[in-house]
Amino acid sequence: MQSRRRIRDYGIKIGELKTGVRNAITDVQGVKVGHVTLLDEAKKTGVTAVLPHEGNIFKEKVFAASHVINGFGKSTGLVQIEELGTLETPIILTNTLSVGMAFDSLVDYMLETNEDIGDTTGTVNPVICECNDGRINDIRGKHIKKEHIFKAILSADVDFEEGAVGAGTGMCCYGLKGGIGTSSRDIELDNGNFTVGVLALTNFGEKKDLLVDGEPIGREIICMDQALINEEDRGSVIIIIATDLPMTHRQLKRMCKRAVVGLSRTGSYISNGSGDVVLGFTTKNRMNHYTNDPLMPLDMLHENYMDYVFRGVKEATEESVLNALVTSDAMVDRKGIQRESLSQYMK
Amino acid sequence: MQSRRRIRDYGIKIGELKTGVRNAITDVQGVKVGHVTLLDEAKKTGVTAVLPHEGNIFKEKVFAASHVINGFGKSTGLVQIEELGTLETPIILTNTLSVGMAFDSLVDYMLETNEDIGDTTGTVNPVICECNDGRINDIRGKHIKKEHIFKAILSADVDFEEGAVGAGTGMCCYGLKGGIGTSSRDIELDNGNFTVGVLALTNFGEKKDLLVDGEPIGREIICMDQALINEEDRGSVIIIIATDLPMTHRQLKRMCKRAVVGLSRTGSYISNGSGDVVLGFTTKNRMNHYTNDPLMPLDMLHENYMDYVFRGVKEATEESVLNALVTSDAMVDRKGIQRESLSQYMK
Amino acid sequence: MQSRRRIRDYGIKIGELKTGVRNAITDVQGVKVGHVTLLDEAKKTGVTAVLPHEGNIFKEKVFAASHVINGFGKSTGLVQIEELGTLETPIILTNTLSVGMAFDSLVDYMLETNEDIGDTTGTVNPVICECNDGRINDIRGKHIKKEHIFKAILSADVDFEEGAVGAGTGMCCYGLKGGIGTSSRDIELDNGNFTVGVLALTNFGEKKDLLVDGEPIGREIICMDQALINEEDRGSVIIIIATDLPMTHRQLKRMCKRAVVGLSRTGSYISNGSGDVVLGFTTKNRMNHYTNDPLMPLDMLHENYMDYVFRGVKEATEESVLNALVTSDAMVDRKGIQRESLSQYMK
Amino acid sequence: MQSRRRIRDYGIKIGELKTGVRNAITDVQGVKVGHVTLLDEAKKTGVTAVLPHEGNIFKEKVFAASHVINGFGKSTGLVQIEELGTLETPIILTNTLSVGMAFDSLVDYMLETNEDIGDTTGTVNPVICECNDGRINDIRGKHIKKEHIFKAILSADVDFEEGAVGAGTGMCCYGLKGGIGTSSRDIELDNGNFTVGVLALTNFGEKKDLLVDGEPIGREIICMDQALINEEDRGSVIIIIATDLPMTHRQLKRMCKRAVVGLSRTGSYISNGSGDVVLGFTTKNRMNHYTNDPLMPLDMLHENYMDYVFRGVKEATEESVLNALVTSDAMVDRKGIQRESLSQYMK
Repeated sequence: MQSRRRIRDYGIKIGELKTGVRNAITDVQGVKVGHVTLLDEAKKTGVTAVLPHEGNIFKEKVFAASHVINGFGKSTGLVQIEELGTLETPIILTNTLSVGMAFDSLVDYMLETNEDIGDTTGTVNPVICECNDGRINDIRGKHIKKEHIFKAILSADVDFEEGAVGAGTGMCCYGLKGGIGTSSRDIELDNGNFTVGVLALTNFGEKKDLLVDGEPIGREIICMDQALINEEDRGSVIIIIATDLPMTHRQLKRMCKRAVVGLSRTGSYISNGSGDVVLGFTTKNRMNHYTNDPLMPLDMLHENYMDYVFRGVKEATEESVLNALVTSDAMVDRKGIQRESLSQYMK
Repeated sequence: MQSRRRIRDYGIKIGELKTGVRNAITDVQGVKVGHVTLLDEAKKTGVTAVLPHEGNIFKEKVFAASHVINGFGKSTGLVQIEELGTLETPIILTNTLSVGMAFDSLVDYMLETNEDIGDTTGTVNPVICECNDGRINDIRGKHIKKEHIFKAILSADVDFEEGAVGAGTGMCCYGLKGGIGTSSRDIELDNGNFTVGVLALTNFGEKKDLLVDGEPIGREIICMDQALINEEDRGSVIIIIATDLPMTHRQLKRMCKRAVVGLSRTGSYISNGSGDVVLGFTTKNRMNHYTNDPLMPLDMLHENYMDYVFRGVKEATEESVLNALVTSDAMVDRKGIQRESLSQYMK
Repeated sequence: MQSRRRIRDYGIKIGELKTGVRNAITDVQGVKVGHVTLLDEAKKTGVTAVLPHEGNIFKEKVFAASHVINGFGKSTGLVQIEELGTLETPIILTNTLSVGMAFDSLVDYMLETNEDIGDTTGTVNPVICECNDGRINDIRGKHIKKEHIFKAILSADVDFEEGAVGAGTGMCCYGLKGGIGTSSRDIELDNGNFTVGVLALTNFGEKKDLLVDGEPIGREIICMDQALINEEDRGSVIIIIATDLPMTHRQLKRMCKRAVVGLSRTGSYISNGSGDVVLGFTTKNRMNHYTNDPLMPLDMLHENYMDYVFRGVKEATEESVLNALVTSDAMVDRKGIQRESLSQYMK
Repeated sequence: MQSRRRIRDYGIKIGELKTGVRNAITDVQGVKVGHVTLLDEAKKTGVTAVLPHEGNIFKEKVFAASHVINGFGKSTGLVQIEELGTLETPIILTNTLSVGMAFDSLVDYMLETNEDIGDTTGTVNPVICECNDGRINDIRGKHIKKEHIFKAILSADVDFEEGAVGAGTGMCCYGLKGGIGTSSRDIELDNGNFTVGVLALTNFGEKKDLLVDGEPIGREIICMDQALINEEDRGSVIIIIATDLPMTHRQLKRMCKRAVVGLSRTGSYISNGSGDVVLGFTTKNRMNHYTNDPLMPLDMLHENYMDYVFRGVKEATEESVLNALVTSDAMVDRKGIQRESLSQYMK
């Protein structure tokens, strides 16, 4: 999918399940990811869009759920997802102070592609997730504009970059350079093969806590700067989980709750200042905006089989975080501290 | 269903929807209710059992959800219902200090009817709901025994009494005598006719707040006793909602949340001391305890049609409370205060 | 406070508690409300700002909580309020499709008034609440601009208008014209007098359900238009509750949960399409953004006294909705249907 | 505190914070733990009681909160803790099918020590937490009796055993023998020194997943039995957290949410069948059952200092699980499989 070395390329294999073909969230059929990266002297930020399927998402909503691990965050749209159990827009990831612009622009995108919204039917629930990239980026500058949101959506593809790109451009993770990472797992059932895919926007953690498959790498990295040693975690992490397993809202919520295991395995203790939010959806179960039939048939996974999903989420989340770290190039932050790449410390 | 005059017999019609044949929770096909009433000098308490269907409930669990309006209560089993979305035992209603005995006895009942529980399969989640009947009953005497739990389950039928019977024997509501009430509504959809049925165990409210279809009856009742005027609400109410509409856990939870509207219309402001708990289930969607198939097909109501359910729940809850009040005969409480029947004040 | 006749001016007294001096949310010391109204041929919308105190809200956050009655809504900021228990910005109310612009503008306002945000300290959690005014307003036109958000904040005062003003300009309620309403109640304790104040943005309900102090006025209003009779509830309601009683987050959340009683008493059954959100805060307990002391002293209401608050919230919410209805002048909606004022039907 | 070798005795140090004097939950001043162990041919079960302070807990309730990591469990009392934010009884841990007996017996204990309950005041909220020890114990035999509950409470002390004792007697963890473990951490603030203490009842996990401070010990243990290799996780874990830091309910809930990090570090992925429940309390903030004063003063930790608590909970939870594993002696389960002690695999 890209040329950068990922965590597996260093011989590190997380968990026991097989990965999907791309080892990416886009292994789930129909899911696409698009980035817009702003990178100059002041601007070190961007936008990442995750599209749950290729059709009209508003007209054909996917079943979805969210889970707030730690709610020190400003994501929008979660209230309605929890009530109605559906996602009806692309998911936009960006920096915290650009959430308003992203919301407004996503409304514009939805209005342009749906003439009925706000006219003959109700409104729309834009889902914007965020992390604070203000350690590296001039976040007060609010550099994200409407065109960036549109471009991220329109450029979405099954192949996409990891690392310091898109919304990940200005992120820090475990004191190092963070960004976007992804991974997936095959779920093999009697009824066929399914996939769980994760995309992580990583901006959390203290250097000393970093674990790579159990190894306390963070403690071993000789510290680069005194300011960094005492750095408080004021980050955040956004975890997007896609699957093609048929599940209900309740089951998707249970699925989302397992992301915290993967995070914990990389060293996080879910600090106070980190807004840790998980959003999951299945491409398999959908609810049409319009219908003439009060009843709709669907499939769901029998509860006895949930462990396959849970293990997959744990593994793909852990690997997504490590992929984000190892594919992100070093960058100097606003205080002049070098935010190194984990790749420098890998053999 | 019984000989007592119900609220409709006084010419009071709550809402606009048609009631089911019995105007009772047992209008939902398969649902049965059984009472055991203990009534002598000291014992003024009892047990009510609600059975969701006629088969083995543990092996064939019904989809269920709960909603805690005010959690000043000791109901058991809600944690697992919220996680797994299923009910796997009869629902037992009784007095607060007998919850342990009811739990223990329901375990016995489940062990007797399921040899695998705790042996070759996991355990079981007993659902016990309660109100404090200590104003009338010698609740410290803990008069409920194992035989009463079994008898309530085994005597369950589609026809059952309302009023000061079963778990309702010693309850007070709006300063008057409370007890068990029930009601139902038809939900007519293009795909056929469905039913929403409610059973309420009523033990809440202050006399001055009582409303009967908007009429401030409570204020009009000349007060019987000074102690009653200043009585604090230390009650509770349990609302059980059954339906044969196919819904998911999330939808059942939304359904449960509408019970508060019915309660509010009878005068409650959800006081601090009242443990107000709602439990809903659908007989249509079930999950087998054992399966060899990872995927299971089901139907669900399209979200656009939820308002039919919501209105039905509101109406049937309000009417259940009024039925409980009007069918309960007067009783003297432990302080010697006459807990009158609302029927005395109806024309 | 204003010249329009309010519900009490028609001889209708909701509940038993005394109102505050203004019978408005601004009876809570320090709370201010500002409106910006856009009203021409196409634009029938606006902004309302609620300020919790007169100081720097970001530096001196007030204890707060939210409660989602029905989550078919797009309000922002609730996730962080639930996690951290504090409100750190003015509350902005506007139309649904302008939430992004409002969020972005409130960020600008906060950045202008706080140089540290996004630079030497973390970011900020903008709280925007919304209803869909698309039945009357050209909501797709997105007419709210940055200047309107700033003006609503800067013009906030203890005296403010009710009715079809500010965010209430284009709202419908019970088929009639809705808008902004407010009310308050005195809470008299041994330690002194306190206040609970409510502000409601009303855009919900079906005409036939409207109750005025128990009277089924809605059924009595001869229907104006066939389209209205079959109108589905696609509205919403936002309830803001302020108090000067010292409470914790948990208690404020319990307080917020009682707003549904007031709504129910006006006829709502909490329909599927109505995003009903409650946000409460106390001006008494505050958390400073910066501190050198790990421990902070505070007061809280002993739980045994919560009923005073609960009753106050019920009464003030019900009265706020009725005030909104009766002070809103009639307006023609986008389909040409006359949205009448409840005042036409009051004697 | 006891003679068994604990995880630190093997040279394994979890985390960076200092432990309390006993490295036990009883390092929090006033907290006591009591065990009753039933151990013969059939009975391999027991009771553990955790007392939050030495006074009358009902009259002087401690601030408390719970967090359900995975709700496949039957714990009682959580609904009221979440609503009122207080714990008013000892916490009883036992096997799943004995929850009813434990509830009933704890009611008896509370009635004996409080003449007002159910007479002149309301009822009481018994908190019973459980795991399913049916793999080892004849759980269908329901061997726990009233006397065992009383004895566990009355024998509670600051010194107590770890391992296969009390409620831990028949538990399995990671395929090995599980049981009771404990640990604590010092929290040093400018205002003085505080403590966070954890007690874990461990009955969860699959052997292959076990991690000891990052080491995949579970994979290294040559498997003892084929049945064990494919064993599904049908366990559970109960985590009790005590502290003397002054916190509110919201903060205690945040604290409880960090236990999952410690669990994850030992290898759990929070499987479907494991009921994972956390209960936390502070001995510092209390609410009297009776009061004449509507307002009560208290302290709370400023939110900026929460990370100290979070890190402490993570560390003490992880160490408690490892202590439980390493102090539990091997036992043969009902299928004849040897449940080995982790101590056999430690050097």
